[in-house]
Amino acid sequence: MGDDLNRRFLLRRRPVGRIRPDDFELVHEPVPVPGPGEALVRTCFLSLDPTNRIWVEDTEQYMPPVQLGEVMRGAALGQVVASREPSLPVGTIVSGLLGWQDYAIVGGPRGVMAQAVPPGLPGPLSALLGTLGITGITAYFGLLDVGRPRAGETVVVSAAAGATGSVVGQIARIHGCRVVGIAGGPAKCAWVRELGFDAVVDYKAPDWRDQLAAATPEGIDLSFENVGGAIMDAVMARMNLHGRVVLCGMISGYNAAEPMRGRFDLVLMKRLRVEGFIVLDYLPRFPEAIGQLAEWMRAGTLVHRETVVEGLERAPEALNMLFDGANVGKLVLRVAEPPLPVP
Amino acid sequence: MGDDLNRRFLLRRRPVGRIRPDDFELVHEPVPVPGPGEALVRTCFLSLDPTNRIWVEDTEQYMPPVQLGEVMRGAALGQVVASREPSLPVGTIVSGLLGWQDYAIVGGPRGVMAQAVPPGLPGPLSALLGTLGITGITAYFGLLDVGRPRAGETVVVSAAAGATGSVVGQIARIHGCRVVGIAGGPAKCAWVRELGFDAVVDYKAPDWRDQLAAATPEGIDLSFENVGGAIMDAVMARMNLHGRVVLCGMISGYNAAEPMRGRFDLVLMKRLRVEGFIVLDYLPRFPEAIGQLAEWMRAGTLVHRETVVEGLERAPEALNMLFDGANVGKLVLRVAEPPLPVP
Repeated sequence: MGDDLNRRFLLRRRPVGRIRPDDFELVHEPVPVPGPGEALVRTCFLSLDPTNRIWVEDTEQYMPPVQLGEVMRGAALGQVVASREPSLPVGTIVSGLLGWQDYAIVGGPRGVMAQAVPPGLPGPLSALLGTLGITGITAYFGLLDVGRPRAGETVVVSAAAGATGSVVGQIARIHGCRVVGIAGGPAKCAWVRELGFDAVVDYKAPDWRDQLAAATPEGIDLSFENVGGAIMDAVMARMNLHGRVVLCGMISGYNAAEPMRGRFDLVLMKRLRVEGFIVLDYLPRFPEAIGQLAEWMRAGTLVHRETVVEGLERAPEALNMLFDGANVGKLVLRVAEPPLPVP
Repeated sequence: MGDDLNRRFLLRRRPVGRIRPDDFELVHEPVPVPGPGEALVRTCFLSLDPTNRIWVEDTEQYMPPVQLGEVMRGAALGQVVASREPSLPVGTIVSGLLGWQDYAIVGGPRGVMAQAVPPGLPGPLSALLGTLGITGITAYFGLLDVGRPRAGETVVVSAAAGATGSVVGQIARIHGCRVVGIAGGPAKCAWVRELGFDAVVDYKAPDWRDQLAAATPEGIDLSFENVGGAIMDAVMARMNLHGRVVLCGMISGYNAAEPMRGRFDLVLMKRLRVEGFIVLDYLPRFPEAIGQLAEWMRAGTLVHRETVVEGLERAPEALNMLFDGANVGKLVLRVAEPPLPVP
């Protein structure tokens, strides 16, 4: 590390609408020195997720909001480069809330939430943030535990070319469902079709509602909702009696000032079950999901894809790519190559 | 019957907003003559329910809307006064969709949906439309099957002085929950307290939000929703993580042109389960509910109360009482005394 500095994005003010780079302040601080029971972790890949936008909002949410002046919270993958904690030897790859910074302390009272990742998983290292990480695990438990799909049912997934949606659709396909994806633009739709979805709706096409109707001739039994807004309304209008809506996210509303609302009249008339879902509730069961996802990846039935942006300094602008639909698959920022051999 | 006539309310036009008497046409027709397999039923008590307002709206709903020119659909209790159907002898009390009319044909292809009611149930005959009828059965399955309350949980019931809400709260109390009712005005609130609710919130008081907060110091685990709108929003804002919302009705929105919406952001952040519920899905299990409700009534742990309006001709104006909160307990219209001895 020597004369290296720790670049850190601090939250400067609460964004109004779309995130602007100067909502954050980039500071350069000395690299922290690990004390007893602590390890120093070099951030390698930073995960960019729609939920990051929620964390900077001062509203009731599933974790405390990031406070002004604090380093921006972010899931990331890093490598231990110095350690005074025997369970985290130098070279260990860790996954956790390292934040938007070059270096983080893991372990001990001041350490961020993180854990060593098991070696030998398939795919690139960054897949541990995507298909084998939070978004893949989200897809796994959200679809299987909350949605409980049955073979032959029609499952609709919004943001189907995104990190979570693309995995949801593939798992539903593996479970014998008729899978319909909703994605924006011909390129994304083509990729979603490649993943084995039975039909794809291009929500940027003027006739997307007709496409949705044509793709779901027997209605919709299960909706995995990532988007909210007009797309969610259209999906709910086609739900079958006693259908289930896994409410995983509503990215279309995260930049809005008003709380996101949905058609409770349809919930009542169609006797739908709408269930909110946050993957952190499943923390103790993460290994089960990772094991199964890895098995499918090795077997070639589950495909991981990512969009990689280079450089920590681009974190704020890269986050907006999610809201512009500019990514295909998991969006990650490459902060640094692992400085040491990966075990 | 002789020179008697059958008064019938036909739907003349679709109401816009609040129901107006001239949305219906009152016609006088000959009393129908039962053919083979049919029975003629004299309407005695007509049930007035919030869902009647839904039935006259030309929207997607859980039954076909009432068509213009058709007799208004309505649950009712009546007595067989002439019969050519051996299973429905003269004198039998029947319950079903007799409609807003003096006489209905039951049985055979042209007969309305109705069935004989078992004799020996406690309470007045009209309780078969309330605590031992659709609203009581709604409370029973909605709370127990959909809501699944556990002893010690905080259950909030809106429209707590209404036919369904008052029974929901009493069943929740019987199951050892902390029960909070929401009702309008001191008289209704006093009655709800008499029923054994732990706390009551008067939504007509300016400080009702503070009352709700004070009544639910440990948040809300289960909401039985009958009202929608601002009251539903306030309840949802106090739901605990993984809370359940039984969406049984949203009367505050039934006169509105816009579809009713709810806080999906809270569903997501608090991982709530919101489930729409229509009691007709439980038709095969009605006897189970009636048996248990009757047992509680006989034991004195479940109280039936009703508001009775006299005269079929007042059906349209009486229906509006529900939207004005002018009824306590089940709202029924007395059309006629049973003309024959009740078995």
